[in-house]
Amino acid sequence: MDEFQIIKTIFAPLAGEGAFGLTDDAAIIRARPGFDLVVTTDAIAEGTDFFAFDPSGSVAQKALRVNLSDLAAKGAVPHAYLLSLALPPSINADWLTAFAAGLAQDQTEFAITLLGGDTGRTEGPLAISVTAFGFVQHGGMVRRSGARAGDDVYVTGTIGDSGGGLAIYKREKHTLDEPQRDALLARYRMPQPPVRFGPALRDLASAAADVSDGLIADLGHIADASAVQLVLDADLVPRSDALRAFWGEEDAAIVRATTAGDDYQIVFTAAPNRHAEVMKAANYYRTQVTRIGRVEAGTGVELTRQGRALPVLRPGYQHF
Amino acid sequence: MDEFQIIKTIFAPLAGEGAFGLTDDAAIIRARPGFDLVVTTDAIAEGTDFFAFDPSGSVAQKALRVNLSDLAAKGAVPHAYLLSLALPPSINADWLTAFAAGLAQDQTEFAITLLGGDTGRTEGPLAISVTAFGFVQHGGMVRRSGARAGDDVYVTGTIGDSGGGLAIYKREKHTLDEPQRDALLARYRMPQPPVRFGPALRDLASAAADVSDGLIADLGHIADASAVQLVLDADLVPRSDALRAFWGEEDAAIVRATTAGDDYQIVFTAAPNRHAEVMKAANYYRTQVTRIGRVEAGTGVELTRQGRALPVLRPGYQHF
Repeated sequence: MDEFQIIKTIFAPLAGEGAFGLTDDAAIIRARPGFDLVVTTDAIAEGTDFFAFDPSGSVAQKALRVNLSDLAAKGAVPHAYLLSLALPPSINADWLTAFAAGLAQDQTEFAITLLGGDTGRTEGPLAISVTAFGFVQHGGMVRRSGARAGDDVYVTGTIGDSGGGLAIYKREKHTLDEPQRDALLARYRMPQPPVRFGPALRDLASAAADVSDGLIADLGHIADASAVQLVLDADLVPRSDALRAFWGEEDAAIVRATTAGDDYQIVFTAAPNRHAEVMKAANYYRTQVTRIGRVEAGTGVELTRQGRALPVLRPGYQHF
Repeated sequence: MDEFQIIKTIFAPLAGEGAFGLTDDAAIIRARPGFDLVVTTDAIAEGTDFFAFDPSGSVAQKALRVNLSDLAAKGAVPHAYLLSLALPPSINADWLTAFAAGLAQDQTEFAITLLGGDTGRTEGPLAISVTAFGFVQHGGMVRRSGARAGDDVYVTGTIGDSGGGLAIYKREKHTLDEPQRDALLARYRMPQPPVRFGPALRDLASAAADVSDGLIADLGHIADASAVQLVLDADLVPRSDALRAFWGEEDAAIVRATTAGDDYQIVFTAAPNRHAEVMKAANYYRTQVTRIGRVEAGTGVELTRQGRALPVLRPGYQHF
């Protein structure tokens, strides 16, 4: 199939309002008076974020979800996305059909549609770039910069599972049973960002970021932008039973979990008097939310355990 | 420099309203009541759209302008853009600094700002993906689908120069003098889309597309979307003196010019009673506009010369 056949047969069925069935040069997003459009873009590449043997449907979902994670962390409700593909010659119509089926599944799951994109060949590794759009009430985007001394620090979900999954992909030795192993692999392959919980942050959080580079690294972005120090209690960082069974309970295991990245959870801060509301929202959206530390005067992020500061040599994933 | 240093020192100075200085997970585009946001995305890659020896400033401008061309063809006024880079290890800080200087120059030229983006490493060729945003009055985007039998067909600028420039890059023999050669190379390296003229199309054109794949191919998209035939007079297709000197006046030279692609001009249709207004707008915006054919009942595109139909084997550039 050439580019136009691929667009017409595989991607056009995914197109939504404003996309003109992918038959025009551009797409339209109609203004919603009183709302801001929130825009984010993130790419994933073979060999880094997924592997050639991964099912293409889950690769598609990962490409979407790493972007929906950013929208959720900003308190935005997802609306639509653009898709840019750089395809090596090995990609065939079957791969693309299953890829589009993965997109279709997440379009239903998250109430989003395809707006447009770009498809080209590459001699390099397969690369997938998504730009995601969401809406938030005007002025309501949750920034990284609003954390204040005295606030509590929270995180959604569990931390480190994706890093554990990647380690298993890379053949790190383990004694996990099959369900534990599969749980960690699944978290690497298919992020589970708290897309519905995100918009609740708009009224509750003083600052938020998505956990993509690593918990410590992304908290560092909040600390920098807010000019505060964030002090974490290592024993409060939520880790799954599978990850505990894999990496253990030593200091190094917690440091590893909090710096591995690829979690696609939300870390946020909120004033102490909002605690009951935070937990109520968590309960309403069936989202695990854990208080893991506090905001203090100062700079940077400190990971402490029973009064000791744990050494963190590399706070997160470095893109290069 | 790591990713965060690159963003902070090289790209943050380009950030505009809603970009939060590139210090957050996402950016914002504020709704303009009564306007639609027009969204388009196009990538360029080393070895296809530019060469490793091209100055990085002009590579940056090409990446932007291939997208501004789409906005112009849709009648939109450019607003902002996202930039995604996949950088091979050979790219250094000097390259990136000159790249950003090229962006800065076009930001001033076209009144746009950087909203955000994504930077990663690749082992493949350098790839640059831009998503561009523009505004058009609600419902005013010029579609591909509005051409009606009886309309005239117009094109801006000259056609084929970029293809001529690419041929010279690829060492095709020629006897051009230096200014002619440089003029063609410049058109390949640095598109000149009619960004200011574009919004005038909103009130004048029945259909429009940007000429990127090739004049015949992009007219084919209009013919398909509008369910009409477009008949071009080959002798009316505007070609520069340099291109005429390079490729000559034979039928094959005109076919080649109209299928080479990478022109980044606008092809559009308009009712005959709008002709005076079209030429007045062209004059006002100092944009060369040439009437090259007419819209008829039927399908596809026909390139004719003195009553003969010229054979067109491949209507334009195929991405794969």
